[in-house]
Amino acid sequence: MIGIIRVITTADADILSEHGKLIERRYGVKTVSACIPDQPYGIYDEATERQAVPKIVVLGQRLAMSGCRALVISCADDPGIDALRQQVPVPVIGAGSATALLAKGYGEPVGLLDIAAEPPRVMKQILGEQLVWHASPPGVTNSAEVMTPYGRKAALKSAREMVENGAKTIAFACTGYSTIGLAKVIREELGVTVIDPVEAEGLLARYAIKN
Amino acid sequence: MIGIIRVITTADADILSEHGKLIERRYGVKTVSACIPDQPYGIYDEATERQAVPKIVVLGQRLAMSGCRALVISCADDPGIDALRQQVPVPVIGAGSATALLAKGYGEPVGLLDIAAEPPRVMKQILGEQLVWHASPPGVTNSAEVMTPYGRKAALKSAREMVENGAKTIAFACTGYSTIGLAKVIREELGVTVIDPVEAEGLLARYAIKN
Repeated sequence: MIGIIRVITTADADILSEHGKLIERRYGVKTVSACIPDQPYGIYDEATERQAVPKIVVLGQRLAMSGCRALVISCADDPGIDALRQQVPVPVIGAGSATALLAKGYGEPVGLLDIAAEPPRVMKQILGEQLVWHASPPGVTNSAEVMTPYGRKAALKSAREMVENGAKTIAFACTGYSTIGLAKVIREELGVTVIDPVEAEGLLARYAIKN
Repeated sequence: MIGIIRVITTADADILSEHGKLIERRYGVKTVSACIPDQPYGIYDEATERQAVPKIVVLGQRLAMSGCRALVISCADDPGIDALRQQVPVPVIGAGSATALLAKGYGEPVGLLDIAAEPPRVMKQILGEQLVWHASPPGVTNSAEVMTPYGRKAALKSAREMVENGAKTIAFACTGYSTIGLAKVIREELGVTVIDPVEAEGLLARYAIKN
């Protein structure tokens, strides 16, 4: 069983488990999802990240205690990952680091499709000079906007521009792009390597537990 | 199709394809294997690595031209990886970097099971301070010795010592340990996360091509 930590508060079981369901469908493993309390808008600045970290640690400990053999922090910023790793005896995987590590493993120049003005620190740090392009579609600044028809179209346009400029790998810096299934569209339309953060975290988690 | 580059010369089709077969069986993808010419003892020092690099590039170009959508350099030292990446339009994966990147993605303290006195440079560089233990079983200095009953026993003993000292992830720095199926034994006997270089390179290659 893989424990999936969502860093946005929701009472909607479908929204809570949407990353887990993607992982289950793709990799044939079981997941259990849990979300941090009292942050309906998730993490969007340093203050909300600071608030979230102790909650992430508590959730992770609970999931590990209940038998999860790997934990996933399903957010491209890897919030709380160092703190949680110190508290649990199982591998802790972050969406951002998993995505960046796969991109690094392929060695191609990377275009990062984001929703923020700056790439997640952890992705920037892992990719170093391999991170050549960074784009956030205009008018798309949160996961909700990613999920609109406009968001989808604008994201594909941003990816296309990075590919036209030479990007050989497109990596997502927001799990919202996973939820809308954008990877498939980019692979089909642009023919480049695409790294989807929910797929990436699932890939690593599955390898850790299923042997 | 995944192109597997072996950095040891062999005319034996079974030996040539043994890494490819492991990947095919595990991940359900097709592979084609090729080996560098005129190096029956493989790469064992800087001179033999320098000799091998241009051969690896030629092989990789040929495999990419013949339709491989990802290439794997199946050796924990990632020989020739930078040179090859500059010459082909597909992802190039190295056994050493793939293994180290997965270990980094789990965040656990790593024990590296090797056959050499020093860890592969690329693994050391990726893991940094996360690389805490490094062991080569006494009397085991090449892949052939790994494959003896003594080699297998000595390797398990070295892994056990690292785990007793606190290693939570055991990563292999030699693909010979993949060939003898040591990962399964360590997982069952020691219960830690194990990263096998042929499994790791296959995992990354499969994700790049099969979506």
